[in-house]
Amino acid sequence: MKNVLFIMCDQLRFDYLGCAGHPTLQTPNIDKLAARGVRFDKAYVQSPICGPSRMSFYTGRYVRSHGSTWNKFPLRVGEMTLGDHLSKLDVRTVLCGKTHMAADTEGMKRLGINPNSAIGVHISECGFEVWDRLDGLHPDGAQEPSHYNDYLRGLDYGGPNPWEQWANSAQGEKDDEILSGWLMSHADKPARIEEEDSETPYTTSRAIEFMEQSKDKSWCLHLSYIKPHWPYIVPAPYHDMYDKDDVIPVLRDEVEREDPHPLLEAYHQHRFSKVFCRDDVRERVIPAYMGLIKQIDDQIGRLMSYLEESGQLDETLIVFTSDHGDYLGDHWLGEKELFHEQSVKIPLIIVDPSKDADQSRGSVSDALIESIDLAPTFVDFFGGYVPDHILEGKSLLPHIRQNTAVERDFVISEYDYSSRLARSLLKKSVKDCRLTMVYDGRYKLIHVEGYRPMLYDLNEDPQEFHDLGASAEHAGIRENLLSHLFDWARQHHNRVTISDDEIDKRAGMEFFRGIQIGFWDQEEVNQAHKEGRGGN
Amino acid sequence: MKNVLFIMCDQLRFDYLGCAGHPTLQTPNIDKLAARGVRFDKAYVQSPICGPSRMSFYTGRYVRSHGSTWNKFPLRVGEMTLGDHLSKLDVRTVLCGKTHMAADTEGMKRLGINPNSAIGVHISECGFEVWDRLDGLHPDGAQEPSHYNDYLRGLDYGGPNPWEQWANSAQGEKDDEILSGWLMSHADKPARIEEEDSETPYTTSRAIEFMEQSKDKSWCLHLSYIKPHWPYIVPAPYHDMYDKDDVIPVLRDEVEREDPHPLLEAYHQHRFSKVFCRDDVRERVIPAYMGLIKQIDDQIGRLMSYLEESGQLDETLIVFTSDHGDYLGDHWLGEKELFHEQSVKIPLIIVDPSKDADQSRGSVSDALIESIDLAPTFVDFFGGYVPDHILEGKSLLPHIRQNTAVERDFVISEYDYSSRLARSLLKKSVKDCRLTMVYDGRYKLIHVEGYRPMLYDLNEDPQEFHDLGASAEHAGIRENLLSHLFDWARQHHNRVTISDDEIDKRAGMEFFRGIQIGFWDQEEVNQAHKEGRGGN
Repeated sequence: MKNVLFIMCDQLRFDYLGCAGHPTLQTPNIDKLAARGVRFDKAYVQSPICGPSRMSFYTGRYVRSHGSTWNKFPLRVGEMTLGDHLSKLDVRTVLCGKTHMAADTEGMKRLGINPNSAIGVHISECGFEVWDRLDGLHPDGAQEPSHYNDYLRGLDYGGPNPWEQWANSAQGEKDDEILSGWLMSHADKPARIEEEDSETPYTTSRAIEFMEQSKDKSWCLHLSYIKPHWPYIVPAPYHDMYDKDDVIPVLRDEVEREDPHPLLEAYHQHRFSKVFCRDDVRERVIPAYMGLIKQIDDQIGRLMSYLEESGQLDETLIVFTSDHGDYLGDHWLGEKELFHEQSVKIPLIIVDPSKDADQSRGSVSDALIESIDLAPTFVDFFGGYVPDHILEGKSLLPHIRQNTAVERDFVISEYDYSSRLARSLLKKSVKDCRLTMVYDGRYKLIHVEGYRPMLYDLNEDPQEFHDLGASAEHAGIRENLLSHLFDWARQHHNRVTISDDEIDKRAGMEFFRGIQIGFWDQEEVNQAHKEGRGGN
Repeated sequence: MKNVLFIMCDQLRFDYLGCAGHPTLQTPNIDKLAARGVRFDKAYVQSPICGPSRMSFYTGRYVRSHGSTWNKFPLRVGEMTLGDHLSKLDVRTVLCGKTHMAADTEGMKRLGINPNSAIGVHISECGFEVWDRLDGLHPDGAQEPSHYNDYLRGLDYGGPNPWEQWANSAQGEKDDEILSGWLMSHADKPARIEEEDSETPYTTSRAIEFMEQSKDKSWCLHLSYIKPHWPYIVPAPYHDMYDKDDVIPVLRDEVEREDPHPLLEAYHQHRFSKVFCRDDVRERVIPAYMGLIKQIDDQIGRLMSYLEESGQLDETLIVFTSDHGDYLGDHWLGEKELFHEQSVKIPLIIVDPSKDADQSRGSVSDALIESIDLAPTFVDFFGGYVPDHILEGKSLLPHIRQNTAVERDFVISEYDYSSRLARSLLKKSVKDCRLTMVYDGRYKLIHVEGYRPMLYDLNEDPQEFHDLGASAEHAGIRENLLSHLFDWARQHHNRVTISDDEIDKRAGMEFFRGIQIGFWDQEEVNQAHKEGRGGN
């Protein structure tokens, strides 16, 4: 029996792990995964924001291909997901945690698909069988977490929205004073919930529950933590495991604010950027962020113990990753969305139980990886054929098992800022807010519609302080990266109903179905039959 | 009551009409349409081959967007068609004739859509309500024409396949000798069928039958003739209305075969090209091709009489067009598929019954038109909102009614030759056979993966004999056209589930749903509420 445990964190930066070199944050359990598998040091998301990034993970396709270009923009009905590919291999594709999926209800209506039917639910849940969905952002008045609030209520966490009032708030000095976790000034306080009832352990428990009850059939379990994504608040004892002395220095330079690219300048105006420019904010928030990661690490330990004890460790491919990073004030920015490493690069560890993978255990790979590589990797792991006219990434198993190079000259990542304040500041129409990154392992170019591109040389300037987008001496470099981008943009991304093999098989066959094009007389037809091809 | 009569021929060249200047072919009825409407002199298909071109007409989207890149490559389930857009406006979208649609049966199965249900049939028939489907190529052993063979059998045209043995064959000298219309040597003989029973009058009759029975609700009738597409054979009296003296001179030059572009050289090797290089072939085939057009013209006359007599002329928008052209030996080529005017340019006449259109009646427009403009034109005609995140063309009504310029700097057309012999000759993989034309009204560039582009200057060289793709002095021109192509390739083509307006409406609203990003304390939140925006 083979299984895949596909663990994703939300907004976890690539460098906030012990194994990735963080000097003060200890993550021994995640580090153990790295020691047992391959840690990919150049892995990138297809879009540095939750929804589009996740839709790329789940469809194995670029954002331009699946079309869900921002959070809650519905994934078009018919777009194939992991669940579609793995069900063909008799594998259950199961969710515990967050997906950020928005269903294409209009499309389903048009196609007569009842959203409550098995297929309707499958589509609405992005191809996952929902064991427990918890999307992680449930402010008062919004949709409830699917099961988590009921769970909390059963434990006597009362009130209209336990997610908000208990799991993501702190207790004030007065009995009736609740301090909202949305506000960063409260980040140093413990969430007013027992640690084991908070989101990360809850989701882990649900995952273990699934694994314990599902030993009769192969599965791909997406264990999708909503943390360390904001609200930045964590229960005791994690709330004071770190303090301001544990915070690594901010990566920013005055040169970034001198004559910046207009887009960067606009992003500096966002509230989430401005607040993270304050040292007191970073010193209050980042320790909580670290606590949330530490909590995840402990839960990974719990998971691994379970897998080991239940004898599933040797048959389970384990992936540990994130949907994007978090600027945390670096580059004078907060949140994510742009393409500095802090935002677009992700932690990625893959532990392949196969003996063939022994050769790569504990190694660090600097191959250029895209998040869309995971879907084909899973299909490959379960022994399936990878339909590369649909899945646009590449299986990583040959790299992990035979040290085969990953064939990729550049990675692509996309973002569309039409939903952001930056659009008003720059006075752009909705159509003109497309950004595309193309990165070849040294040079990173960001194409910005209507402006010059940005360019960084990560060899000479690993911290990406110096935008070479206007540098005359780098014109040739930009030319080269733009040419990669052009190549990529011209590719088929939508010919999803027929494979290359099938096209190859059909080519020239119309003649044998009686479609005789360009023949003068029967003699020519007879001759063509002898030669075995119609000649077109 | 408003209606649209959307007439399409198959493989009708733009210049084989009297009104387009053909010196020997008279098409008085089509010319009358031109006199009553606008004739577009620079109209181009999105792909110079039946299937992909038609899918673009019917979806209003580029080939790269709808993904059906060759004949019978299924149109993905969920892709919206004219029928979807017009049914919202309470208009029936009806088919008499050819669509070349291939259904995405796998996609339907995945979504649990029964292909025989109303929605399944709607999807399978490309959104059309089928009054009569006749795809025009039904060799022995292939699928039967849906109704036409039954119709012929009812008239005592016997045998296994009356489409093949009667409508598309000639009578030999002996009683049992049937001369196949697939063979060009038979093109001068009459098809062995009464003229009124042949495909063009049959399809016209079915269309009139529909119109006669459907006066209670608005309709868009796609009257889609399969002619003058091969088999090149036509019943009496049309088979000898023209002879070799009526054939216009071939447009080809030896310079085209001196050091040609590798792709062109490969296309010259196709049987359909080689046969059309023979003068005897052109002299035998083209008179039949002209006879087929003449027959269509007579049927258009019959149609117009019907519309006039039934009083529907004043409420019906009439379109006359084709899905691509036919080289007929020009440029040493047969068939279509490449991007010379003979292949990619189409006749297009639009007769708008509105009084506002009086100002443009009888005019010839040289605006750059793409075939995807028709779908939004129809939606606009019926008073609907054009969803421009889905429909990628532009309504032509403002141009026809107010003489507003069509905003377009270039037209795009695409083709993929992976199903053709050229691929083996050039030793290309299936993925590497993409061609894209970008034409700005003077210069036409064809981007060929893996090779230099081709370039033609239609001002200096209207016959497109001189490929400037390697000309040093045209480097800047090529640069400019490639830059247009790059712009186009980067656009969203797949964000089909949410409109620009909706994005605009949602922008910044997450703050008001309780998602508070980047706030330090409650005072800042209160201030943001006062200012009416969360600041991101």
